[in-house]
Amino acid sequence: MTLMEAAVLTAPHSISIAPMNVPSLEPDQVLVRVAAVGVCGSDVHYYEHGRIGPYIVESPLVLGHELSGRIEDVGSDVDPGRIGQRVAIEPQRPCRVCSQCKAGRYNLCPDMEFFATPPIDGAFSEFVAIQSDFAFDIPDNVSDEAAALIEPLSVGIWACQRAEIKPGSRVLVAGAGPIGVIVAQTARAFGASEVIVTDIDAGRREFALTSGATRVIDPLAESVEGLEVDAFIDATGAAPAVRSGILAVRAAGRVILVGLGNDDLELPVSFLQNREIWLSGVFRYANTWPLAIELVSSGRVDLDRLVTARFGLAESERALTIGREPGQLKAIVYPGR
Amino acid sequence: MTLMEAAVLTAPHSISIAPMNVPSLEPDQVLVRVAAVGVCGSDVHYYEHGRIGPYIVESPLVLGHELSGRIEDVGSDVDPGRIGQRVAIEPQRPCRVCSQCKAGRYNLCPDMEFFATPPIDGAFSEFVAIQSDFAFDIPDNVSDEAAALIEPLSVGIWACQRAEIKPGSRVLVAGAGPIGVIVAQTARAFGASEVIVTDIDAGRREFALTSGATRVIDPLAESVEGLEVDAFIDATGAAPAVRSGILAVRAAGRVILVGLGNDDLELPVSFLQNREIWLSGVFRYANTWPLAIELVSSGRVDLDRLVTARFGLAESERALTIGREPGQLKAIVYPGR
Amino acid sequence: MTLMEAAVLTAPHSISIAPMNVPSLEPDQVLVRVAAVGVCGSDVHYYEHGRIGPYIVESPLVLGHELSGRIEDVGSDVDPGRIGQRVAIEPQRPCRVCSQCKAGRYNLCPDMEFFATPPIDGAFSEFVAIQSDFAFDIPDNVSDEAAALIEPLSVGIWACQRAEIKPGSRVLVAGAGPIGVIVAQTARAFGASEVIVTDIDAGRREFALTSGATRVIDPLAESVEGLEVDAFIDATGAAPAVRSGILAVRAAGRVILVGLGNDDLELPVSFLQNREIWLSGVFRYANTWPLAIELVSSGRVDLDRLVTARFGLAESERALTIGREPGQLKAIVYPGR
Amino acid sequence: MTLMEAAVLTAPHSISIAPMNVPSLEPDQVLVRVAAVGVCGSDVHYYEHGRIGPYIVESPLVLGHELSGRIEDVGSDVDPGRIGQRVAIEPQRPCRVCSQCKAGRYNLCPDMEFFATPPIDGAFSEFVAIQSDFAFDIPDNVSDEAAALIEPLSVGIWACQRAEIKPGSRVLVAGAGPIGVIVAQTARAFGASEVIVTDIDAGRREFALTSGATRVIDPLAESVEGLEVDAFIDATGAAPAVRSGILAVRAAGRVILVGLGNDDLELPVSFLQNREIWLSGVFRYANTWPLAIELVSSGRVDLDRLVTARFGLAESERALTIGREPGQLKAIVYPGR
Repeated sequence: MTLMEAAVLTAPHSISIAPMNVPSLEPDQVLVRVAAVGVCGSDVHYYEHGRIGPYIVESPLVLGHELSGRIEDVGSDVDPGRIGQRVAIEPQRPCRVCSQCKAGRYNLCPDMEFFATPPIDGAFSEFVAIQSDFAFDIPDNVSDEAAALIEPLSVGIWACQRAEIKPGSRVLVAGAGPIGVIVAQTARAFGASEVIVTDIDAGRREFALTSGATRVIDPLAESVEGLEVDAFIDATGAAPAVRSGILAVRAAGRVILVGLGNDDLELPVSFLQNREIWLSGVFRYANTWPLAIELVSSGRVDLDRLVTARFGLAESERALTIGREPGQLKAIVYPGR
Repeated sequence: MTLMEAAVLTAPHSISIAPMNVPSLEPDQVLVRVAAVGVCGSDVHYYEHGRIGPYIVESPLVLGHELSGRIEDVGSDVDPGRIGQRVAIEPQRPCRVCSQCKAGRYNLCPDMEFFATPPIDGAFSEFVAIQSDFAFDIPDNVSDEAAALIEPLSVGIWACQRAEIKPGSRVLVAGAGPIGVIVAQTARAFGASEVIVTDIDAGRREFALTSGATRVIDPLAESVEGLEVDAFIDATGAAPAVRSGILAVRAAGRVILVGLGNDDLELPVSFLQNREIWLSGVFRYANTWPLAIELVSSGRVDLDRLVTARFGLAESERALTIGREPGQLKAIVYPGR
Repeated sequence: MTLMEAAVLTAPHSISIAPMNVPSLEPDQVLVRVAAVGVCGSDVHYYEHGRIGPYIVESPLVLGHELSGRIEDVGSDVDPGRIGQRVAIEPQRPCRVCSQCKAGRYNLCPDMEFFATPPIDGAFSEFVAIQSDFAFDIPDNVSDEAAALIEPLSVGIWACQRAEIKPGSRVLVAGAGPIGVIVAQTARAFGASEVIVTDIDAGRREFALTSGATRVIDPLAESVEGLEVDAFIDATGAAPAVRSGILAVRAAGRVILVGLGNDDLELPVSFLQNREIWLSGVFRYANTWPLAIELVSSGRVDLDRLVTARFGLAESERALTIGREPGQLKAIVYPGR
Repeated sequence: MTLMEAAVLTAPHSISIAPMNVPSLEPDQVLVRVAAVGVCGSDVHYYEHGRIGPYIVESPLVLGHELSGRIEDVGSDVDPGRIGQRVAIEPQRPCRVCSQCKAGRYNLCPDMEFFATPPIDGAFSEFVAIQSDFAFDIPDNVSDEAAALIEPLSVGIWACQRAEIKPGSRVLVAGAGPIGVIVAQTARAFGASEVIVTDIDAGRREFALTSGATRVIDPLAESVEGLEVDAFIDATGAAPAVRSGILAVRAAGRVILVGLGNDDLELPVSFLQNREIWLSGVFRYANTWPLAIELVSSGRVDLDRLVTARFGLAESERALTIGREPGQLKAIVYPGR
């Protein structure tokens, strides 16, 4: 049993760099030497609070679920020709046998094992193991960082698919953080003619204009109600943004809630009823990696420009806190450095 | 200009029987001698409050939008062979030229004229005029009362279509009033294997068991959470029913809000997100009359058994108030009596 | 290694009863003692021709893929509580990792292993092994024979789902053999108002009227063109039936080809174009067993009445040939007799 | 009654320039002074054969249905503010009351009146009348010619919509004539990652590479079978192209036949069945003008570059014949010149 280094969350606000066993491989798995790992808001939430809703960190946990790397070894059922391939990782393991999995909605599998969701370890470590079909080859023109950010791009793709964004769509996106600007870029790649992004931060609004938005709005200065967009995608989880965003949607339009906020929200229900608007959320994604890689590789989505800070494994704790600082969008951890 | 009698709402809680002009026909219209008119909760609401949300009764209004009758005359572009036909009326007139109309969603037409919605008169009168294609022939085995109740059945069909009820579906219906039991019957006709109806009234629960429900639940005594139904259709508009109903829905299921309540409701949003449940409402219906007539004519839905009281035109005000009494489900007004 | 008896196809028109090893179990499999096996047209085709299109019997093959039984043993990962359960078997094993499987279309998996399709053995034997999630519990009120015929019912369900049969649909079914009458019953269970079945055999037409058809037509005596049905489902594979059936479909309707005939057919393409009719076929089924069991258990579909002959394992060859005789619809083999 | 000049087809291969009455307006119509008219293959077919399938030219007919112009007058129900607007015309008039119209499929209206389809006159004339909602404002940056070619672009959009082209799609297009290259451009605008266009003409293949195609194939030199594309769109109507194109489609993919050829075609039906491929055609289009205008105005589709010849009204006959010459793609008639 070989050892590797990992950044382990042992208690809220406490990360230790500790040795762990390199994962042993099941027959259908590959061993991936982690290249780059993006820091996600959920990582930060576990770091700060030790839990997200019903998911509680009860024993030491490795965070990180946005990752790329290189295949170092393969299980007994996997083609050894995969060794050496650069890959983007879809960090989930569905059961493949339940009715949701067999219906193509494996993201809703009740027995899902998801990276960095207790008790499953994530990727702030030198190696991870994953089912071979969840490790996707990436072309040379996709950087390690972009390959890691295929994961949040998959959230954006899933949101745009569920929002039925298509050529000519007019879309409102609330929030110009990492997910908001990725959604904006994705909506444009899906053919949206107009992508209106709101954020209370002027710097983020400015950045959004270079990252998918055709127009930005400061919601404190201007109302979005009455925009009559085809779809509203919330990437804030904030009650006022959700409410006003819904009131911007045309009859028969769609609302997709991506941002996580309070468990309960007061919604303008009669507005939804009278306009027959469909409202739902996204829970991760399914079958998005091939399209995501294609969008990045073809230049239709640019993920590299989201990265604002880079750290070695020993600096993981710093990577988890820098996001609160102005001007920061996405931090990357390099476990091999 | 010939005169006819109509029951006119002149102020909240005030109905007068008054002479009105028989409607003159546009070229594409038919004149219908009204046979039977069902009393709907929205009629009662206008009667009691003089308004429903943004729709305000500012001048005398004829109520009633659930109706059947016989064609008495036709406009210049309509086949005179229609004269004499018994018809069920779809009580709406869309513009046919806006993008919603041309996309097949004419119920969402912003220029809709709808019976008994200010300032459009309804059917508590001897005659109404309607576009010929919104007057549907009914077979002999469909009674005048059932033909009138094709309108609420259309609400039920629209709700079941939007809820994607299909063979094998498990459905939860909140509320065993007229709409609730019609939804229950419709869900069964759509092939649902299980239709669970909740109501706090024991008599209504008992009736529901004879009208589509495979099981009834008293929500004060037993929780519906965790039922893991494929679809939840609310026919109450009551906040507790909506909340608990949502919590009964499986991942990737659907919630359709039919009942009207407060404009705003606090909803379990993170539950909707984590399960990717779709939530929407119904706003009237589109293209439902042919199927509704077929379901009634073939005996798959029984509307006659919903009628609990009958009145002449002069008793319209009584018809609008009797629904508050125990054991009442659906009152019918006969304008010709 | 224990031995069991099986009926083995060794050459066209040649079946031997021979000892075989009882299958050994993989961790996720169950061992099923076969109760009843239906004889399908494809079994007969392999028996007579030794091949179906690209699938060639190159070594001895056990036929039979419509089966029910009882769980006798379980693999190491399966709950031992399953031992003793009566089950209907979905006789296929997809890879679960390809893009078709992960999109919920596992029936299109290019690596599918399907019972009685070379080189995978079928069920004319005392035991079979199958993945646990493809062995479905059946309630006591479903007979062994009906449980075996869940397989062809699944073909009917899949065809009706792809044909978008729904309440009020008018459906044309060509062919009143086993699949035709099952499709007719299924269409009715899906809410079809009218199910018109064609067959050149008067006896089969008569039977169809007791098995789902609301009307039957002798295609040699009466044309179906112009019926303007919502959907046409072919269960013959015969060129004239397919052509005339297509010409019976309304604009925007659907054509589903279930019957297998020549690889190429001359189709009325400009008719399909001018009416924007969708045409496709079915290739097996996916996720149909739960609904099929529900339809049978609830009495909405009656499979027992299709069985016209029963045989022991030693009479398997007779079971494969009797279908050519008048009045025969479905033969059952009992491997345990 | 004012007179205008029109190019009238009086017999096959015979066009006369003749005076006609300027159309009188119904209340919901606008009078359009025609700016530019594209010549379509169907115009040529009527010119050469006097019929297309069941549509027979039995009295003098004005051809042309791809047109733009300027509103010169309005009917009594139309806002006079429309006078002077530059418009692209959707050259059809559905009944708006049949079940197809009310379901949003007005292109399938059995009572459709379509420009240049007997006995409805088309646009090779100084003026045409059209329902106001079928005359769409165009922005200044869209040329008269591009505005006329919104019509064939609508065919391309409709084909791509029915083929479910989306981000990442791999598409095969047979034929690099006007429709083929428009489909190719549209598929790219819909996000297709790969658009493979086949044509036997080297010049057309070369042009296609500058008009949407990511790759071109000479079908006489290289087979497309096995490309495993997500969708195949035929713009040839030629039997070999249709057959080989179908054989290029992956399981669960789509085939859309746009090109018109023989009424009957021999198709690889068992291939369609085994792969559950959906096959259909397009019959004109519905609700495509707004998106088409958006795609042109935003530069995502370039129609101007398709025009290879221009003529005055007096040269209409020449415009109808030049398309057979090498290097020609799209001729435009200017009725005002």
